[in-house]
Amino acid sequence: MPYRLGIDLGGTTAKIALVDAKNRVERQESVGTANRPDPKSLARTMAEVCRRFSIGKKIQSLGVGVAGDIDSERGVVRVSPNLGWKNVPLRNLLKRHLAFPIMVDNDANAAAWGIFHTQVPASAQNVIVITLGTGVGGGIILNRSLHRGATGSAGEIGHMTLVQNGRRCNCGNRGCLEAYAGGYYLAKYARQMAKAGGTALEKWSELNGELTAKSLAQAANAGNRAAKNLWEEAGRMLGIAIGNLVYTLNPDTVVLTGGVAKAGGLLLRPARRVLRERTFKTITGAVRVKIAKGATEAGVIGASLL
Amino acid sequence: MPYRLGIDLGGTTAKIALVDAKNRVERQESVGTANRPDPKSLARTMAEVCRRFSIGKKIQSLGVGVAGDIDSERGVVRVSPNLGWKNVPLRNLLKRHLAFPIMVDNDANAAAWGIFHTQVPASAQNVIVITLGTGVGGGIILNRSLHRGATGSAGEIGHMTLVQNGRRCNCGNRGCLEAYAGGYYLAKYARQMAKAGGTALEKWSELNGELTAKSLAQAANAGNRAAKNLWEEAGRMLGIAIGNLVYTLNPDTVVLTGGVAKAGGLLLRPARRVLRERTFKTITGAVRVKIAKGATEAGVIGASLL
Repeated sequence: MPYRLGIDLGGTTAKIALVDAKNRVERQESVGTANRPDPKSLARTMAEVCRRFSIGKKIQSLGVGVAGDIDSERGVVRVSPNLGWKNVPLRNLLKRHLAFPIMVDNDANAAAWGIFHTQVPASAQNVIVITLGTGVGGGIILNRSLHRGATGSAGEIGHMTLVQNGRRCNCGNRGCLEAYAGGYYLAKYARQMAKAGGTALEKWSELNGELTAKSLAQAANAGNRAAKNLWEEAGRMLGIAIGNLVYTLNPDTVVLTGGVAKAGGLLLRPARRVLRERTFKTITGAVRVKIAKGATEAGVIGASLL
Repeated sequence: MPYRLGIDLGGTTAKIALVDAKNRVERQESVGTANRPDPKSLARTMAEVCRRFSIGKKIQSLGVGVAGDIDSERGVVRVSPNLGWKNVPLRNLLKRHLAFPIMVDNDANAAAWGIFHTQVPASAQNVIVITLGTGVGGGIILNRSLHRGATGSAGEIGHMTLVQNGRRCNCGNRGCLEAYAGGYYLAKYARQMAKAGGTALEKWSELNGELTAKSLAQAANAGNRAAKNLWEEAGRMLGIAIGNLVYTLNPDTVVLTGGVAKAGGLLLRPARRVLRERTFKTITGAVRVKIAKGATEAGVIGASLL
């Protein structure tokens, strides 16, 4: 049985996986990537793991999903703020050590591709995956193909402007989806509210240490009003963003994934309500919005399928 | 030389054209469609014109672009408010009279397809066409194919929400792009301002009769402040919408067409400025935003190419 290799290369770890023909992870290993790793030596280390996984196996290909702006045609990492890389010819660096075909793309595309292949019915043709993590990203599958766009940058859903003079986003703009539904911002505003006092969020902060998107979800589920409001706003913004995507692309499926998506109904209920209120029925009637299940392996599986 | 037939079927007229292999309109004829025409008799009349155009010519196909929600796979007009039609099997009605292959799609897709084939360099792969007429619509070409989506409704760009509690739109929602950049709304707000007085728009109204998007552009070009502000706002909203589309789809080309696009720089200057301000350089650097030239025939040419 042929195998594939997938690497999910982020700013904390590189997860390297051996994936079988049925898209199951057979082996997985992590390599640390914090402290701006040297591209050449990281490529060598990752290639060593790949070679070890390959022993006695027929390997079809290796795919790498990298957090950053990627030129997938040339296999170059244009910019990765998380890794501190600029213009790194990652495919060529890996080719020095490995003989099978290698593809490099961005991690959001890889994760979307993995979700498309493992979590969506075979009948789905047009699928939008929204990754709600620290930041917000996405991947767009149209007619069963990953849509990359002119420079491989398609799917930057997190920086759609939803509020003209809205919350400031780290990208320099205001009112981006990410500034409402990204884990970094949810935690940031929760901490601000806890500090200001009077919302009982300060108690959550005392009990759980520094507030995060996760503890903010616990607080909301326990009935904390301020926490509920932050999730309600995030869900509403997400609903507007999904509505705009649905009007533009008329997908059959929208999947939410990433750590923040684990908030589940806190996010999904207001998102669905706004979508219903704002969008024509013929279009919303055709789309299913759901949260990915146990999608932590989607990144490496999707990378292996690139 | 083989020919194609194209019909641009709107709520006022059906334009029927004989198009040659070089995408030039050789003959064109119009049939009135106001007053909710009977589908069967309109199909017969249009087919008669098609047959007349076909005499002594080799016809490859007929394509029809219809204002409304279209099921292009079955060739059915699901709903066309402009024509007063519901569930009209237009392809089958035309097939009774004509022997060549017939395609039916919505008019915005047909126009986008026509513009893609006549106004965009051959190197363009991913093209978004925004039609700024009475309303705002669009057509999306990805990897050189028309993207229709799950129910053929993709490209409904005019109803993207840009302002949560913004201007009321006829669709029932608030803050749609169309409510800022559609000709109907530009004229509506201009008339309101003229009526309120104090903006010198009342003078334009006296000189030119009821204010329209066209006379509003003349007023702005002649220096009228209120008119300039309305165009500035329309252009800004258009810039935000284009930015969101660019983040999502990373196109190489965005083309503005339709009567309102004739305002040219009044619309394009603020749109480009907002796009530059709000969007990452790697993405905006790859996209060219332009206004279509003399695109009145794009509808029939695009229909003929469906």
